[in-house]
Amino acid sequence: MRVDHHRMLDHALVGGTGLDPRQVEALAARFPAVRAEVRRRTGEGEYGFTALGGQEAAVAEITRFAEGVGQAHDHVLVLGIGGSALGTRAVLEALRGPGWNELDDEAREFWPRLTVLDNVDPTSVAAALRRIDPRRVLVNVVSKSGGTAETMAQYLVVRAWLEEALGSGATRHLVFTTDPERGALRELARREGIAALAVPPAVGGRYSVLSPVGLLPAALVGVRIEDLLRGARRALAAADTDEFTAHPAALWSGLQWAADTGLGRHIHVLMAYSDRLRAVGDWFCQLWAESLGKRVNREGAVVHVGPTPLAAVGAVDQHSLVQLLVEGPLDKTVTFLGVADHGEDVAIPGRDGLPAELAYLAGHTLGGLLRAEREATAEALARAGRMSCLVELADLSAESVGEALMFFQLATGYAGAWYGVDPFDQPGVELGKRLTYAAMRRPGFV
Amino acid sequence: MRVDHHRMLDHALVGGTGLDPRQVEALAARFPAVRAEVRRRTGEGEYGFTALGGQEAAVAEITRFAEGVGQAHDHVLVLGIGGSALGTRAVLEALRGPGWNELDDEAREFWPRLTVLDNVDPTSVAAALRRIDPRRVLVNVVSKSGGTAETMAQYLVVRAWLEEALGSGATRHLVFTTDPERGALRELARREGIAALAVPPAVGGRYSVLSPVGLLPAALVGVRIEDLLRGARRALAAADTDEFTAHPAALWSGLQWAADTGLGRHIHVLMAYSDRLRAVGDWFCQLWAESLGKRVNREGAVVHVGPTPLAAVGAVDQHSLVQLLVEGPLDKTVTFLGVADHGEDVAIPGRDGLPAELAYLAGHTLGGLLRAEREATAEALARAGRMSCLVELADLSAESVGEALMFFQLATGYAGAWYGVDPFDQPGVELGKRLTYAAMRRPGFV
Repeated sequence: MRVDHHRMLDHALVGGTGLDPRQVEALAARFPAVRAEVRRRTGEGEYGFTALGGQEAAVAEITRFAEGVGQAHDHVLVLGIGGSALGTRAVLEALRGPGWNELDDEAREFWPRLTVLDNVDPTSVAAALRRIDPRRVLVNVVSKSGGTAETMAQYLVVRAWLEEALGSGATRHLVFTTDPERGALRELARREGIAALAVPPAVGGRYSVLSPVGLLPAALVGVRIEDLLRGARRALAAADTDEFTAHPAALWSGLQWAADTGLGRHIHVLMAYSDRLRAVGDWFCQLWAESLGKRVNREGAVVHVGPTPLAAVGAVDQHSLVQLLVEGPLDKTVTFLGVADHGEDVAIPGRDGLPAELAYLAGHTLGGLLRAEREATAEALARAGRMSCLVELADLSAESVGEALMFFQLATGYAGAWYGVDPFDQPGVELGKRLTYAAMRRPGFV
Repeated sequence: MRVDHHRMLDHALVGGTGLDPRQVEALAARFPAVRAEVRRRTGEGEYGFTALGGQEAAVAEITRFAEGVGQAHDHVLVLGIGGSALGTRAVLEALRGPGWNELDDEAREFWPRLTVLDNVDPTSVAAALRRIDPRRVLVNVVSKSGGTAETMAQYLVVRAWLEEALGSGATRHLVFTTDPERGALRELARREGIAALAVPPAVGGRYSVLSPVGLLPAALVGVRIEDLLRGARRALAAADTDEFTAHPAALWSGLQWAADTGLGRHIHVLMAYSDRLRAVGDWFCQLWAESLGKRVNREGAVVHVGPTPLAAVGAVDQHSLVQLLVEGPLDKTVTFLGVADHGEDVAIPGRDGLPAELAYLAGHTLGGLLRAEREATAEALARAGRMSCLVELADLSAESVGEALMFFQLATGYAGAWYGVDPFDQPGVELGKRLTYAAMRRPGFV
């Protein structure tokens, strides 16, 4: 993975609207304290996700489970929401492609299809249950707390659907991913002898993609999960330095923070130049928004901070958002998420009688066009005084994807320290939960 | 369609952080001038999309074409980007469901599958061409100008793929949607006798969903396009009033503008409580961002304006963005896009031995839970001083979806007048296009 900040760091490049050298110096001067804080809190157990690089026992357990399931199922149905769904979808789309479920058995090399049901929209749930054969499905119910309203409502629906088809055999089509001790899902697993994997208690939902939450579904569709973790270890190793400009996650997050708080760049766009990384963008949005959007800081002062993440896909959104990015308010940074080697490329053939204005396309490749567009967009943004940077994956292997996921998690952990907030809580969602609960218990509510 | 602004209009409701009565009065006082400007420019031909409610000739032509094609194809492949793809995807997902291509023939009532290829990502294009049978595909190439780089590169690839399988029969598997007179696609259609539909010249790409751009793919998968247009006419009729608070599109866009320019609410979140409306959110983002994000206003003054649209889906993003919406900076408005009747609902069954903390779920429905969550989120936002409003579709019929699409287009047209910018141009994307073109022509570029 390569991180290139030259269009963030060069004040002149963006026409004098970028970070000036004093701002960058101030950032570097603050880095030792930020790093010390992250290390201290890691020692106190707060940054639990950083331990996910090495999980021999969990990997062995997941691999054993996936092999035991074997070819008994041709569909994996994941029930989960938020951090229990976004990471799984990110890994699936990056490594199996967004059109995975449309491929026939041979093209999928006989790995199962995978559907993530992450909403209580009745039309989605009904359509999925009509489409999937209950006799050939493995249902993975994912909730760290074991009591998430949406996921448990889905579970009750899906459980009845399984039992209608399978009777008491339904339990063999279920596997839970939840807290090792507590909550309703763990209780049900114990009582009914349902297979269950543990989410490490120190790992929060939105940081759980590299825990059994994301690893089990990945293994079930043939992703080599040890490669994902090898990539994660590479990102962790890169973060093992006291030198600011050599620390990719601290530098990237520090520049985003400085651009936000110093220059009013409140919106952080992550623009992936790969259809396969679209869902990584959605995953990042939760990570960045829920970790940093906070009413109070670590000292308890009311601050109402937090940048707004915005996921985009190039070249598609050059025809959608880029007009605003180039000409609108100076309130954004853009991080291009590129891929050096897409694994395959497609030649653009010429043909007789091609209208003259299209001749420049022939002889190139789609991959070349995509890269040219990314570079042109970065340059056009710079000429309009807009900062951008590049995070480039070497390829779309499990190792590179695991590295990128851990990089963004580390960056978010560091951002918590730059912003001075707790990146692991989400107190702002509690009131909505309580109001929903109250409404559901009110007499007469349908 | 119902638009409910009470949480935008009541200053007290959002704890004194909302629009105060004087701001709302100022808005109402400006409305006659805004409305007069929109009417004058419509008379001058600028608001071409407002003529799309009645298109007897185009509807007849599209219906004839779709019927002529009959059952000869089991896959429709749309090549297009930006406004040539987003509207088609919005209509397909809203009316056929996001999982349409995963349904078997019977569940699709023998209507074809539909794939929108909107990027030049080589892995997506290669995967689609491996998956689709060229002998059973109809390829709809959509580019208003007829020269869009990404779409024409796709066309050259797909054309060669068709010819390899079909020889000179390839042309019968193609239909173009483009300018009636000009551009490379029109030239090719004429020269090779390829079927071609016309995009009305007065209709810009991002306002073209209800033109043949969106109507042809919709008709090909069995959507009753006359219902879409009947809905559009309903939205147009609702906009035929001089009374500000009775004019849904002017009121909604005026409140967004006042919240942005008067209260610093620069980010406009559209949060759909329906998986089927997720793609409507993406479509809206292009419409709002590209229409309003402008360097200069109508008078030529440099202003750098434009709100940032953000598409979200509930209840999913309650577990992602809502923490930021509730606790972060006071820089957002939220528009909930709801559905009164989803068309079907799913009961949440109880069961023996259900852990006590889950008992409140049993006996309700997924649709009821989804509605409770939407209302709880709106209330939680209000208690935290955050403005929101509701746009509620009666159902997910073609008529309701057509009405919503026209409503948001009208709102964007009005927003152009509130912001004082041209909502129909996109000068900020030109430099990127020129730089891409220059890179592709440079010797040695692969």
